[in-house]
Parts: sequence; C-alpha cells; structure tokens
Amino acid sequence: MNIKDYLEHKQVEVDRFLDQVTPAATLPPTTLHESMRYSLMAGGKRIRPILAIAAAEAVETNPPGLMAVACSLEFIHTYSLIHDDLPSMDNDDFRRGKPTNHKVYGDAMAILAGDALLTMAFDLCSRPDLMKGCDPTRQVRLIQELAYGSGHAGMVGGQVFDIQAENRDIDLAALQNIHKHKTGMLIRAAVRMGAIAAGATDRQLNDMTGYAEDIGLAFQVADDVLNVTGTREELGKNPNTDAERGKKTYPTFYGVDGAKKFADECVARAIGRLSSFGQSADPLREIARYITSRKN
Amino acid sequence: MNIKDYLEHKQVEVDRFLDQVTPAATLPPTTLHESMRYSLMAGGKRIRPILAIAAAEAVETNPPGLMAVACSLEFIHTYSLIHDDLPSMDNDDFRRGKPTNHKVYGDAMAILAGDALLTMAFDLCSRPDLMKGCDPTRQVRLIQELAYGSGHAGMVGGQVFDIQAENRDIDLAALQNIHKHKTGMLIRAAVRMGAIAAGATDRQLNDMTGYAEDIGLAFQVADDVLNVTGTREELGKNPNTDAERGKKTYPTFYGVDGAKKFADECVARAIGRLSSFGQSADPLREIARYITSRKN
Repeated sequence: MNIKDYLEHKQVEVDRFLDQVTPAATLPPTTLHESMRYSLMAGGKRIRPILAIAAAEAVETNPPGLMAVACSLEFIHTYSLIHDDLPSMDNDDFRRGKPTNHKVYGDAMAILAGDALLTMAFDLCSRPDLMKGCDPTRQVRLIQELAYGSGHAGMVGGQVFDIQAENRDIDLAALQNIHKHKTGMLIRAAVRMGAIAAGATDRQLNDMTGYAEDIGLAFQVADDVLNVTGTREELGKNPNTDAERGKKTYPTFYGVDGAKKFADECVARAIGRLSSFGQSADPLREIARYITSRKN
Repeated sequence: MNIKDYLEHKQVEVDRFLDQVTPAATLPPTTLHESMRYSLMAGGKRIRPILAIAAAEAVETNPPGLMAVACSLEFIHTYSLIHDDLPSMDNDDFRRGKPTNHKVYGDAMAILAGDALLTMAFDLCSRPDLMKGCDPTRQVRLIQELAYGSGHAGMVGGQVFDIQAENRDIDLAALQNIHKHKTGMLIRAAVRMGAIAAGATDRQLNDMTGYAEDIGLAFQVADDVLNVTGTREELGKNPNTDAERGKKTYPTFYGVDGAKKFADECVARAIGRLSSFGQSADPLREIARYITSRKN
C-alpha cells in the first residue's frame, strides 16, 4: 500500500462527511455555522478520524456508524484549536496558513463555535440516522471513550497542564505528562473508538491502546521538532513559537537529533504492538511511520 | 405538597451528587478542578436537574441513572454561565453574589473549566457506574437529547441569536426566537430527559414537551421581569443590566405588568398540558407556579 494515497483518499472521505453533517452556513444562526465551518473545513490532515478508521479496518471493514464516530474526533480536535488560539490562551493569529477563527469572527463567536463543535461531537455519536445499525451498548461505550479522552482527565486537563508550565522550569516527566494528556488522550480515544466500533476483542483493544499511546508520543515529539525545523510555508504558521514563549519541548531536553531518534523509537514500539494483526493493520503501521516523516 | 420543601430537598440531593461526581480540587490539574467546582457549587437553584427529576417522578419513581442524567443538565447550564460571563461575551463581574469564574481564575482557565464541564455532562450520561441498569437504547436517546438541546440548534444557537440582537431594534418574534433557544431548549431537554429516563410513552413525552416549552417561556419572561424589579441582594448581581445594555426584553414590549400576566398565562397553559397525569405530576405543576413567584 501507498500511505500517501491512503491518507489522501481517507481525507477526501472525511472531508465529504464533515461537510455533509455540519449545518449549512445559510442556516440561522448563520454566523455560528459559518464560523464552525471555517475552522472545520480549513484543510486539517484528519489524522484522528483516519486513525479511528484504520483501527476499525484492522478488525472489521466498515462497521455501522464508523464515519460519524471517526468524525466526532475531528469536531473535538477543531474546537480545541479554536479555543487554544484565543487571545487569553495561546493568542495565535494564524492556523494552517489562515487567520485564526477569532481573528475573523471575533472572540465571542470563536468561543461559541468551539462550544458548538464540542457538543456536536456527541451529537454525531448519538444520532439515530448516522449511527444506524450500531449496537447501543457499544455506542454508549464509544461516547464514554470520547468524553473521557477529551475532558478534564484527558485533553482539557492536558491543556491546563500546558498553560501552567509556560515559562516554568519543568522537567521531562512534567513535559511527558502534558503531552500524554494534551495530544495523547485524544489520539488514544481515536484508535480505541475505531477498534470498539469494529467490535475488537479485549486483547485487540489492549494492543491497539499500546499502539495509540506510542504513536501519540511520537506525534507530539515530531510536532515539537517541526516547530523548530519547519518553515512558515510548511507549518502554515510561524516556526519556533515554542522557544519564543519559553516553552520546554522534547528538543529542549534531547536536542533536535535526539528528539527525532526518540520519536523513531516510539514508532518502532508502536508497530511492534500490532504483531497479532495481519495485513489489515498495515494502514496503522504506515501511519505510525508517516508521523515522523511528515513536514507539517 | 409544599413546593419550597420539595425544591429544598431535591436541591440538597442534587448538590450532594454534584459534589460526589466532580473531581476533587486536590486532584491534578488542581486549578481546573477548583475552577469547575467554584462555579458548579456556587449555590445554583438546580432548576434543570429538579425538572428532570420531577418529570421522571410523574412517570416512574427513581429510574436507573436518573441523578446522573439530571445533573448532566447542571453541568451544561454551569458551563454556559461561565462562558457567557467572559469579557468577550457579557463581561459580567458577579454571578450569584460571587465574583465570576474568570474574575477568580482568569479567562483561560474559565474557558477550559467551561469546556471540561460541558464534556463532563456527556461523561456522566455514559458512565457505566452512574448509569447502571439503564437500557442502552434509552441511554443513547438521552445523550442525543442533551446534545441537541445544548448545541448549535439549541442553547449555543440561542446565545448567538442573543449576541447578534444586542443594540439592535429586534421585534417580538426575534426576542421569542432568542429565548426559545437560549433558555428554552435546555429546559425542554431537561423535562424530556427525565421523562425518557423513566420510560414515558410517546403520548406522555409529547405532553411533557408542551409543558416544558410553556414553562421555558414563562421562566425567561419572569427572568426579564426580575432583571427590572429585583434588588442586587435578591439577584446576586446588579439589576437592570438588560436595559443598560440596550437589550430588548418582554417588559420592553409588554411593560412589567403585561409581561407578568403573559408569564402567568404560560404557566396556566403548561399545567393544562399535564391533565392526563395524576398526583405524580404535582411537583411539575407546582414548579410551574413557582417560576413566576420566585424572587431570584
């Protein structure tokens, strides 16, 4: 398989689904829906939905409700970016090469668009039309995974750890704790949700969780490296923002080369976790490799 | 029955449950949990959870998971207050007689506490321990009601309509549209969720929905009236803030007495909707009457 083709193909499918389920910008309140769409359709890589789809494929092809479940993760991810970019948070003006949501729609609308996207993630996973055929017990479990991974014990908690660490002299364990929560928990939820939607056994789910934790770490380390080595064109935002903010990152502790090596080790470990799966898990394996080779 | 005793009793139960399920302020990230608790335990009247409980009681006593379902509405309500009070939104310094969340914890933490509370509402409704014994099909339906009532088509949408109407010359229909969404949809969800949790028939659910829409309107009209007639002590915040902001309210269109009369008519209609229920719906009837007699 060619991972670039695979990712592109899945990205198109995800984009199409997101476009279909998100309220039209002509529907009142129009500005809210326009603002939601602005960030949701801003050309994200859709890594989280694709991870959920790939995890499901490793177990069973196309289980009922998979696209809704997968896309719910993109709603969560997008809301978190909008809120993180706000002036009172990271105060970022650009994201994926475009002005950030609050720069276009104002702070109030950006907060509300984030709230609406967050809520819509749970709407997707509970909608009878989109989830038709999914066993309700499994559906509740999926919703629980999403809430757990994205809430106070997961992504939001990680964002708080991150804010509190700014301009402080944190150690490596504290940095790992931030990443584990801020990016790791949603990636973990994505992989687990895909596997659960496809009816994974406990053993399979356990292996997939290990995989997810390893690539979650690799993903963040790679992000930290890109923040140092990437260009404005590649990143769609200014590089080196972490250092300017006095943020400690993996390159701070390991150096750029050491951080790259560490990410590669995580990827190798992640792939090792999938030894009980056959070819059906190849997309997951290739995604793991892609994470450390990407340029944005 | 004595409605004041009933409300006080239920409020104590709800407070106890909220306290139990919310992460301790000693648990990291401590500031996030402290901030969530600050607003959640700030002495709210718990009208939404109590409405859910009373709606359930009208159908069946104490169905499995009722407290979690009821309290999920308070998490949504509380997050919406925190975000609404932010400087970029209503910019309120006081709420229930205490400094608003962002005044104590800063804007970033207030945004994140709101996000965490919102997410936790869905966590509650999907947690196996709290929802034990609830039929999963019913559980998914409850989650769908919550997402629908609180998202872009419900409460968040209403907040957008409200912001867009500020300092504009809106008509009565536009005002009703704001209220229907901003407060109405969550109250509607509360009543419906209680009824669904208790296994209401379609007919019962239909009657309850009518009741909920009528009291939702009465509730908002009464709030508008209180904003004009209440004192700072009664309201826990400055009175007359609506007029100062150039906001059109029911008293703007009907006058204070006309608005009061209109609210009373809504209450009478709401009670009329419950004619097929026996004594078990008395709490719902009394709550409807209480709405227009309250002082805060």
